[in-house]
Amino acid sequence: MSAENPLILPEDHLFGRHNLPYGVYSTADTPDRRRIGVRYGDRVLDLGAAAELFASPHIALLRAGSLNPLMAAGRAVWTAVRTDLRLWLTSPTHHQQVAPLLTPLTEVTLHLPFEVADYVDFYASEHHATNVGKMFRPDGEPLTPNWKRLPIGYHGRSGTVVVSGTEIVRPHGQRKAPADPVPAFGPSQRLDIEAEVGFVVGAPTALGSSVPQSAFREHVFGVCLVNDWSARDIQAWEYVPLGPFLGKSFATSVSPWITPLEALDSARVAPPERTHQLLPYLDDADSEPGGIDLRITVTLNGQTIAEPPFSAMYWTAAQQLAHMTVNGASLRTGDLFASGTVSGPEPHQRGCLLELTWGGREPLELADAKRTFLEDGDEVTISAWAPGPDAARIGLGEVTGRVAC
Amino acid sequence: MSAENPLILPEDHLFGRHNLPYGVYSTADTPDRRRIGVRYGDRVLDLGAAAELFASPHIALLRAGSLNPLMAAGRAVWTAVRTDLRLWLTSPTHHQQVAPLLTPLTEVTLHLPFEVADYVDFYASEHHATNVGKMFRPDGEPLTPNWKRLPIGYHGRSGTVVVSGTEIVRPHGQRKAPADPVPAFGPSQRLDIEAEVGFVVGAPTALGSSVPQSAFREHVFGVCLVNDWSARDIQAWEYVPLGPFLGKSFATSVSPWITPLEALDSARVAPPERTHQLLPYLDDADSEPGGIDLRITVTLNGQTIAEPPFSAMYWTAAQQLAHMTVNGASLRTGDLFASGTVSGPEPHQRGCLLELTWGGREPLELADAKRTFLEDGDEVTISAWAPGPDAARIGLGEVTGRVAC
Repeated sequence: MSAENPLILPEDHLFGRHNLPYGVYSTADTPDRRRIGVRYGDRVLDLGAAAELFASPHIALLRAGSLNPLMAAGRAVWTAVRTDLRLWLTSPTHHQQVAPLLTPLTEVTLHLPFEVADYVDFYASEHHATNVGKMFRPDGEPLTPNWKRLPIGYHGRSGTVVVSGTEIVRPHGQRKAPADPVPAFGPSQRLDIEAEVGFVVGAPTALGSSVPQSAFREHVFGVCLVNDWSARDIQAWEYVPLGPFLGKSFATSVSPWITPLEALDSARVAPPERTHQLLPYLDDADSEPGGIDLRITVTLNGQTIAEPPFSAMYWTAAQQLAHMTVNGASLRTGDLFASGTVSGPEPHQRGCLLELTWGGREPLELADAKRTFLEDGDEVTISAWAPGPDAARIGLGEVTGRVAC
Repeated sequence: MSAENPLILPEDHLFGRHNLPYGVYSTADTPDRRRIGVRYGDRVLDLGAAAELFASPHIALLRAGSLNPLMAAGRAVWTAVRTDLRLWLTSPTHHQQVAPLLTPLTEVTLHLPFEVADYVDFYASEHHATNVGKMFRPDGEPLTPNWKRLPIGYHGRSGTVVVSGTEIVRPHGQRKAPADPVPAFGPSQRLDIEAEVGFVVGAPTALGSSVPQSAFREHVFGVCLVNDWSARDIQAWEYVPLGPFLGKSFATSVSPWITPLEALDSARVAPPERTHQLLPYLDDADSEPGGIDLRITVTLNGQTIAEPPFSAMYWTAAQQLAHMTVNGASLRTGDLFASGTVSGPEPHQRGCLLELTWGGREPLELADAKRTFLEDGDEVTISAWAPGPDAARIGLGEVTGRVAC
């Protein structure tokens, strides 16, 4: 095989045989036809065409225009498809047949990979919650009394979840600093990012049932990166007493690739030590490690501004799912729940500008500019990788967005 | 015509020719076939069959299994269909043809009439917000400083919006009274209702655009009743700082009939006098009256416990829609936004048990029992009517639910 064989990848490629994330794409030839693709190296495999070629029993799911049918099919099918996929892509006997089904990433358009049902945003970093608490409620304890007892979360707007690359229109809204006599209206002056990790639900549940931590893998299909764009001035004025609303609902960007949960098995780590005894449904002392050693990088106009460690998150995704359903709330295929801003203990590990600039009081020094909050034209990119098996690394598809001018 | 002609209704029937609400039903013969129906008297018209009979140009929309395609079609189509419908049902020349397309309500199963996209719950009654503020934050001002400046709202869980009649499973969760040292877990001991009015979005908008109050009728398809079931003990412990989550997300019931907005034209009234100058996008001093004179009745096990007046709501639905989109958030067909608990100034006009029993301290005296919060087996029904044209009355389909034993 020549070095140009697209099916032979360097062992350290972030999108090698241990990753195989799913997305949805179209090509310039057939812009209206959305297909499920699998990222392999810097190419996209046409999954439906491969399924047809190899007479997959799951061909109907794999020829869909979104990931939802595959996601709904459940864990046994996810595992079977992934096993097949790896064989198709890595067995030299298939190279000749499979190579024509690969398209360079540069020649495809990536779309929102699944239809978002409900979107829930958690608040799972103790470092982030403490920093925000100090800034928003300077006279109180930074963490509310419930914070260590349950994973705080709220519902966001699923209709404004957009795929990476979508331009972000600066939101207008009301703001009022405590000293202002009346609110003012206009474009947000404190437009921010939140670097988060999202979990995508595949297998649904019935109303009235709950998902224990032990059943996490039966329901969660995969993982993506999330930028939960936030207008801090709008949020600060509106959020008491019913929580964030317009300060968040204008846009939430997700990466175009959903990495299967299984691909992150080698990255499982124990979460931080629990300081409070948890109620049984949240207790994870004897569970498989629920943390994930994902190393995140946030860039602003190409310059790294933060490196938040996902392993520092206090609450795990399995705890979040158990909590979210303990009241009997059902899950639907396509439910997305995000971690909340990922921030570590160190200043350069903070996942939003609010923290990085301490409420705008300590501007970031970029190579050729200073920043407190985002300016028009700014572009933010969040990327991440995790340790894989055999010294491999698993990349999450990056999520990027530019503030419209 | 004989008195038994199903197409001749008493002039004072709540579901007469001025109402004509839409729903989705199936029959025992074809339980898997969902059809759009129109309630007329105590019967349901098979709208798809009528459209076929009269060669409606909108037949494809009217033969769908949910209201979403019709809702997405926009106001001109809504008006045209409604005009046709009224003619089909009321013109004596059509009686013979139309009568066979009507099925008694008692012989149909009603389903969730539309696919819910995002669900937003507002907090628009000054009386309710004041009462809750006094109970939840006894040491502060009952209304937060933002309350008179913007319609407070938050996103709820659209996946657990269920149709009237769905049994409600009492949610489990964490609760902790301020004096308790640690939280306890178990079934909610303070299960409550919230009597609300819901507005259903038909015509969508693009991300980055806003809907001024003047465009309200272009986007809102119709109105339903909502019971926003609430677990007060779970809610009180979880809701600071990000708002209600599991205390609400286990179930929200909606009436099976969506009354077209136009049917409530005669019920338009001016909202309460505004005590603060509003920002231009919320100012409604010169708008058409945004209030609706809907008279709500709440019964518990058949006994009336409250009669909340919707006309007392401080914020109108047009203001809520303008606010919800002023940041550029897009609308999707099927978005549902609810008013928040409807409470009037008088004690018997309060739309939830929390207020009616003042936090459980003043039990309701029923004929044969006392109630603070809901007990297993309790059944709650919310109904409402509004003045129509020519002394007619317009009924909203009732929303009912029983707490599972």
